[in-house]
Amino acid sequence: MAKAKYVFLFGDRKAEGNAKMKNLLGGKGANLAEMNLIGVPVPPGFTITTEICTIYNEKGRDYAVDLIKEDVIKAVVHVENIMGMKFGDQENPLLVSVRSGARASMPGMMDTVLNLGLNDKAVEGIAKKSNNPRFAWDSYRRFVQMYGDVVLGMKPESKESQDPFEVIIEEIKDKRGIQLDTQLTAGDLKELVHLFKTAVKKQTGHSFPNDPWEQLWGAIMAVFDSWMNERAILYRKLNKIPEEWGTAVSVQAMVFGNMGDTSATGVAFTRDAATGENIFNGEYLINAQGEDVVAGIRTPQQITHEGSLRWAKLTNVSEHERVSKYPSLEETMPDVYKDLYDTQEKLEKHYRDMQDMEFTIQDGKLWLLQTRTGKRTGAAMVKIALDMLHENIVTKDEAIMRVEPGKLDELLHPVFDDEAIKNAKVVSKGLPASPGAATGQIVFYADDAEKWASAGKKVILVRIETSPEDLKGMNSAEGILTARGGMTSHAAVVARGMGKCCVSGAGSIKIDYKARSLKMDGNVYKEGDFISLNGSTGEVYDGMLKTVNPEMSGYFGKLMKLADKKAKLYVRTNADTPHDAQVARAFGAQGIGLCRTEHMFFGGHKIIAMREMILAENEEDRRKALEKLLPIQRNDFEGIFEAMKGLPVTVRLLDPPLHEFVPHDEKGQKEMADVMGISVEAIKAKVEELKEFNPMLGHRGCRLGNTYPEITETQTRAIIEAVLNLKKKKIKTYPEIMVPLTGNLVEMQMQEKIIRATVEKVFEERNDKIDYLVGTMIEVPRAALTADKIAKSAEFFSFGTNDLTQMTFGYSRDDAGKFLPVYIEKGILKNDPFQILDQEGVGQLVEMAVKKGRKTRKKIKLGICGEHGGEPSSIEFCHRAGLHYVSCSPYRVPIARLATAQAAIMNKRSWKKHNK
Amino acid sequence: MAKAKYVFLFGDRKAEGNAKMKNLLGGKGANLAEMNLIGVPVPPGFTITTEICTIYNEKGRDYAVDLIKEDVIKAVVHVENIMGMKFGDQENPLLVSVRSGARASMPGMMDTVLNLGLNDKAVEGIAKKSNNPRFAWDSYRRFVQMYGDVVLGMKPESKESQDPFEVIIEEIKDKRGIQLDTQLTAGDLKELVHLFKTAVKKQTGHSFPNDPWEQLWGAIMAVFDSWMNERAILYRKLNKIPEEWGTAVSVQAMVFGNMGDTSATGVAFTRDAATGENIFNGEYLINAQGEDVVAGIRTPQQITHEGSLRWAKLTNVSEHERVSKYPSLEETMPDVYKDLYDTQEKLEKHYRDMQDMEFTIQDGKLWLLQTRTGKRTGAAMVKIALDMLHENIVTKDEAIMRVEPGKLDELLHPVFDDEAIKNAKVVSKGLPASPGAATGQIVFYADDAEKWASAGKKVILVRIETSPEDLKGMNSAEGILTARGGMTSHAAVVARGMGKCCVSGAGSIKIDYKARSLKMDGNVYKEGDFISLNGSTGEVYDGMLKTVNPEMSGYFGKLMKLADKKAKLYVRTNADTPHDAQVARAFGAQGIGLCRTEHMFFGGHKIIAMREMILAENEEDRRKALEKLLPIQRNDFEGIFEAMKGLPVTVRLLDPPLHEFVPHDEKGQKEMADVMGISVEAIKAKVEELKEFNPMLGHRGCRLGNTYPEITETQTRAIIEAVLNLKKKKIKTYPEIMVPLTGNLVEMQMQEKIIRATVEKVFEERNDKIDYLVGTMIEVPRAALTADKIAKSAEFFSFGTNDLTQMTFGYSRDDAGKFLPVYIEKGILKNDPFQILDQEGVGQLVEMAVKKGRKTRKKIKLGICGEHGGEPSSIEFCHRAGLHYVSCSPYRVPIARLATAQAAIMNKRSWKKHNK
Repeated sequence: MAKAKYVFLFGDRKAEGNAKMKNLLGGKGANLAEMNLIGVPVPPGFTITTEICTIYNEKGRDYAVDLIKEDVIKAVVHVENIMGMKFGDQENPLLVSVRSGARASMPGMMDTVLNLGLNDKAVEGIAKKSNNPRFAWDSYRRFVQMYGDVVLGMKPESKESQDPFEVIIEEIKDKRGIQLDTQLTAGDLKELVHLFKTAVKKQTGHSFPNDPWEQLWGAIMAVFDSWMNERAILYRKLNKIPEEWGTAVSVQAMVFGNMGDTSATGVAFTRDAATGENIFNGEYLINAQGEDVVAGIRTPQQITHEGSLRWAKLTNVSEHERVSKYPSLEETMPDVYKDLYDTQEKLEKHYRDMQDMEFTIQDGKLWLLQTRTGKRTGAAMVKIALDMLHENIVTKDEAIMRVEPGKLDELLHPVFDDEAIKNAKVVSKGLPASPGAATGQIVFYADDAEKWASAGKKVILVRIETSPEDLKGMNSAEGILTARGGMTSHAAVVARGMGKCCVSGAGSIKIDYKARSLKMDGNVYKEGDFISLNGSTGEVYDGMLKTVNPEMSGYFGKLMKLADKKAKLYVRTNADTPHDAQVARAFGAQGIGLCRTEHMFFGGHKIIAMREMILAENEEDRRKALEKLLPIQRNDFEGIFEAMKGLPVTVRLLDPPLHEFVPHDEKGQKEMADVMGISVEAIKAKVEELKEFNPMLGHRGCRLGNTYPEITETQTRAIIEAVLNLKKKKIKTYPEIMVPLTGNLVEMQMQEKIIRATVEKVFEERNDKIDYLVGTMIEVPRAALTADKIAKSAEFFSFGTNDLTQMTFGYSRDDAGKFLPVYIEKGILKNDPFQILDQEGVGQLVEMAVKKGRKTRKKIKLGICGEHGGEPSSIEFCHRAGLHYVSCSPYRVPIARLATAQAAIMNKRSWKKHNK
Repeated sequence: MAKAKYVFLFGDRKAEGNAKMKNLLGGKGANLAEMNLIGVPVPPGFTITTEICTIYNEKGRDYAVDLIKEDVIKAVVHVENIMGMKFGDQENPLLVSVRSGARASMPGMMDTVLNLGLNDKAVEGIAKKSNNPRFAWDSYRRFVQMYGDVVLGMKPESKESQDPFEVIIEEIKDKRGIQLDTQLTAGDLKELVHLFKTAVKKQTGHSFPNDPWEQLWGAIMAVFDSWMNERAILYRKLNKIPEEWGTAVSVQAMVFGNMGDTSATGVAFTRDAATGENIFNGEYLINAQGEDVVAGIRTPQQITHEGSLRWAKLTNVSEHERVSKYPSLEETMPDVYKDLYDTQEKLEKHYRDMQDMEFTIQDGKLWLLQTRTGKRTGAAMVKIALDMLHENIVTKDEAIMRVEPGKLDELLHPVFDDEAIKNAKVVSKGLPASPGAATGQIVFYADDAEKWASAGKKVILVRIETSPEDLKGMNSAEGILTARGGMTSHAAVVARGMGKCCVSGAGSIKIDYKARSLKMDGNVYKEGDFISLNGSTGEVYDGMLKTVNPEMSGYFGKLMKLADKKAKLYVRTNADTPHDAQVARAFGAQGIGLCRTEHMFFGGHKIIAMREMILAENEEDRRKALEKLLPIQRNDFEGIFEAMKGLPVTVRLLDPPLHEFVPHDEKGQKEMADVMGISVEAIKAKVEELKEFNPMLGHRGCRLGNTYPEITETQTRAIIEAVLNLKKKKIKTYPEIMVPLTGNLVEMQMQEKIIRATVEKVFEERNDKIDYLVGTMIEVPRAALTADKIAKSAEFFSFGTNDLTQMTFGYSRDDAGKFLPVYIEKGILKNDPFQILDQEGVGQLVEMAVKKGRKTRKKIKLGICGEHGGEPSSIEFCHRAGLHYVSCSPYRVPIARLATAQAAIMNKRSWKKHNK
């Protein structure tokens, strides 16, 4: 067997890897290789594969190092040769960066070390060669600081205490009486390096390594370690990135954006990541290194002139101030700007998607350090996909595939009500970093955001700037407001990724963390006060603002139309009320896949009649109580069928155990006793009698309808009377009566018999009739196993994957909280099976039931009405399994419509095979 | 299509049917045909098929009658021709009997009408022809009485009131001053007929039918109706006879055992139904009709001389009294006896099994009315099967197949302790009608027996005689004692069928139903007093007697040896204690298939340590508590492994939710708080925290072991330390560690990892080792569906069909009581799936898991440890599915051993196929 290749070289327009090797080289490594291949200027380097990360985690450092040691030494020589420099040399030392890069982008989650290779001797060589001692010592200072943090664990002692290196810098600045880092002299920086090293020795007990090779191996392993740090794990969990993917490590020759005023560093996007507009944009900083832009410490400048003007307007910066303090790259370095512009065009054209690039300008020369598919908001994602379709860059199929269904959710979020906005008081303005409308109570710490949110409160996280530590809190917040940082700051990038509303760089606000308050527009806002954010305009409002549902128009509407043409599955909705039915219909639902009837028994006089039914000791009394419920239900059904006129509506007969309809507390029982005119003891006895050890597996579903056939009769009558009433009003309906929890043919046949007999009776009474179907849920494993038999009676199957998942796994959804999170954390389960259909287990049953059902009844109608019906990967499965429709909650309908189209595109052939 | 044949003729040594047509003609009809074919004298007649019963029940009387009317008329002519008599004739009228006969024997459960065809004119014809008016009128009287009861519904008004006809008879007897029915004159009987008819008219409003055809159709339909009467339904339920089988009706020319002293009627067995001894035996009555013998009204006489002598001895009848009052048939009618003897030999030889025959002697001529495979006790069943094997009547396979596994249960019932018997006081003696030992409290009514038994009491049902109405109560009682009736009385036959201990015809006891007391041996016993019965000797003892377990010796032992040679499956036992293990081993268990460990945590200091473990807030505290449990568990394991030395023992790791180990009542919680030294509130909070909505689907099984790995570690350590301790004592053990509730490969792998790591650690500490297996229960549907994956980690599968049934059906065993009985009653389910494995649904999962498991791991060990492992039809399924062993409770082991042999015989080929 040939030795596996773990180290891939690139540089000088050549590369051993390419863009397709993301799994092995990570996104960054693959694209660095690819950029070389297409002639984009990239500093030379090499990538250590993700396999080594996995090996490192499994077998430890020594084993991993042994595997790659020789190749890494050779690779460094390769870089030395291209750069004409030498790693660890005293005169012409090669410095390198060490960066992480996983298969999927995880911005800011893992660690990076820059300027590696510096030591007390090399720094002198650089000072001499660059004739810029301050640059040399600043680089060294940055290296020691970064290496100390990332590799040697020099972290702040607590959340509220400062970075140990920053403390030292502040002390020096105080001593010198200066305010900006740029005011530090070479001597100051030299002193800082010394102080930093002393601090390292003191805190860690070890001297800072002077050997560049020791530095290199330390940094490589630290990057691998960062794959398993807390925030990376959380990010993966949120973004469903498997742990076993691992990260690659790219080691690359350093180029410097901090070599003086002809140097700079920046981040650019080929299109607007927030709106999707086809506008080249980005931010840069002169005389800085990459992390300065992202960290939001200095206010970055715009790359394009147009962008700069717009930014100034948004942040109330005068043209004079803008030109003097924040000029665009287009203005300061027009030639480099031209190079950058051409390069971004080349990259977008090559990759056929919006790019997010990092670049450095060293002494007037442009170097690209990274390109990747740019993260974007849901709205931008839709617009870019459709624009690229119109620009003939992508095909229709590709345009559809470019939109992540889950991200559409953002577009369905409420927006501020127009009237409310007119009267709202703007108290601050920042950058429209991530669109959306958010209203909530102010909190200043990420873990408060988490706590408050889990207590049911809506919060706005307000920070001077955010860092990866804030991730959980950001995820819990409705929106994020930062005082510092641009459109590419941590807060902005992460918020867009999460689809959270974010206003960044609202420079006018003053935050006092200790007092837990902030000053805006002259007023003090305390923790807990309400504010509202408009992430699309950057405006911050006082108090709570009313929100309304978004409209399905514009780009979104176009995308949906495109999707519907491709989709093979229909999308229905789960709706129990006319209102829900209307909302879903507006979102494009093609019918109701699940109308639960139990909700019709709650509230006011309905629950009283229901309880009379439950208390009845015999069929006669039960029938009397059901008589009272009949007109109420009929009325409810009329509303729902009317809202869905012209489309099918599947009504599920009573499903929950009767225990759910009686009060379980003393007070409720007393009230019930008073209303019913019987003793509390009788109520208690009944409640006790109805109590079950495992209600999920108890007396419910069609087990109720088969032990009390009069319930099924009454519900059937209500449905059929309702649709006949509507027929008189010329309203078309397509009723489908669904039996819940069937596990056995005879069980289903008994229900069918009751239903059909009742329907015939109503038809006769009304001297009218209508087409209808009788079918069943498939939600008990046995129903799937015996679907061939059940299909003898059922005209349709609707997979109730919620219960089917519960019973197939033996997990009670209500109780799984005790072990499910642990199971996901330990990797026993890849996903929560209640969110993402378990194709391996539950899916087998679904496929089996489809096959068996069709064998008996060729044209059997097949759908899914569990919550998986709105989840893209599950929808794709449903498509492959050959179902006819999925049904999901109203707000998931557009997501499902897109997902059905994507499923059809991904499985063009398989669907045909199934359905013929 | 040819018209279906619904009526089958027989008579004069010819027949349209034969013994193989039981499904269509019922057992009786098929054998009546067969007897004709082999030359046994049988009165001619015809059989209406079971199909008509089904049609009658589905489509009603008119439809059914139309189908057979013509054929029945022709069939009556056929009988008329053979008999030379005419149905409904005034001078030479043909009388017929109308009897039920289902595929399986249901003695006394359905109705019979005799002497049909009589009316006021025909009776005169018979009187004249027979020259015996008394016989004619007695027959008429019997017919009106029986027809009135069966067809016209002349029943006693209440349970305690007398039969309306018997009341009239008593009045006449009083008036005449006579005591016996036989003392009634022809005139009396004529008057009785008149009075009976008047009573019928009064009670039913209709005149008694005079038209023989009206009588015939009424009787046929009444017999069909009796298929659906309450006691027949109950009997079918008890004996698992499907309702759709239906009953046939045989109409047969009457022959008369009541034509005077040269006539008689009787019942005979080719072997002893109680003991199985190869002794021809039976009872008869001179000048009587068949029901007189069974009803137990007159004391029947023995057929053989030897039997008569034995009977006299048992019942303390002097030889003088015996000869004068109760001579044997061998003595009274030696020629007929010879015919009967030859016939029974012929029949047993022909049918190759013990026969139960009904015969009538009319005027010195023998007629056989019925032959069928004789019901017998479990002991007799075993002995007869083995005797017939030795007599070369049956093969080994047939001998094994002849024993119903369920009946072996009787042989495993306790018998009286020898010492106890020595000191016991015999208070009465009757016939040893059905063997066994029974101790209990006296009750006099069947429904009291039911009530008391359901309240947990052991009762002896004491009746003058029993009737089919007593069926439920007999089933609830420990034993039955009757004052009247012989070895073939209702009580005796039914008790033997049920495997209940019964002493019948204990003539010395005097029962006073009203006072609810009985007099025996000069003392009065009241309801609730304790007595004991020995069904093998007929002795009745005062008070309670100590019982002991039976020995596995004699015929039983031989049968087991024979079975073991045929069986392909091993039989293991479910045992949690050394005692259970020993009992099972004595019954032939080949190891433990399921040793539950949760029982080891209850009681005394064990539960305290367990609760400390549960209350622990962190791993350290949990480990401390587990440390305390370790030696206790190790000790328990040593006991069990030692009891099963040399055989495999599967130990299941902790399975139930922790909630089961904490007290749920105030008092218990207070006690726990005191013992633990913490507040009641803390206990309550923990109990509340552990509470689950659906504990069956909650935090249990390996979900415990994966969230608290230290539990798995401790249990593993206890097991391995125990077996290593035993190894030092040269005791061989084969431990198999079983993970419960696995549903996913990774879940299993994590447990395997913990187990193997712990085992290795103990091996190292002890510097010793032993072979062991790690496997899993398959009890979650998903485990079956992904068994190919799980088998990567599991070395064996044990099907936990209890939970698998719960989850596959979605039935909570604890809650199903609300609908399962209704479901079985309504025919939605044929059986309780917790008793009899649902092969259609759950079985599919088992087969799937077997196939998938073997695909991954060719030699995977496969067994079942659910309660189905002791149920014959489920065992047969396990054999077909290709398992290696079944495991059942200790007392079911012999049953399972027999069932595994039968499974092998029934599926000789399929097993080989599976296992290659």
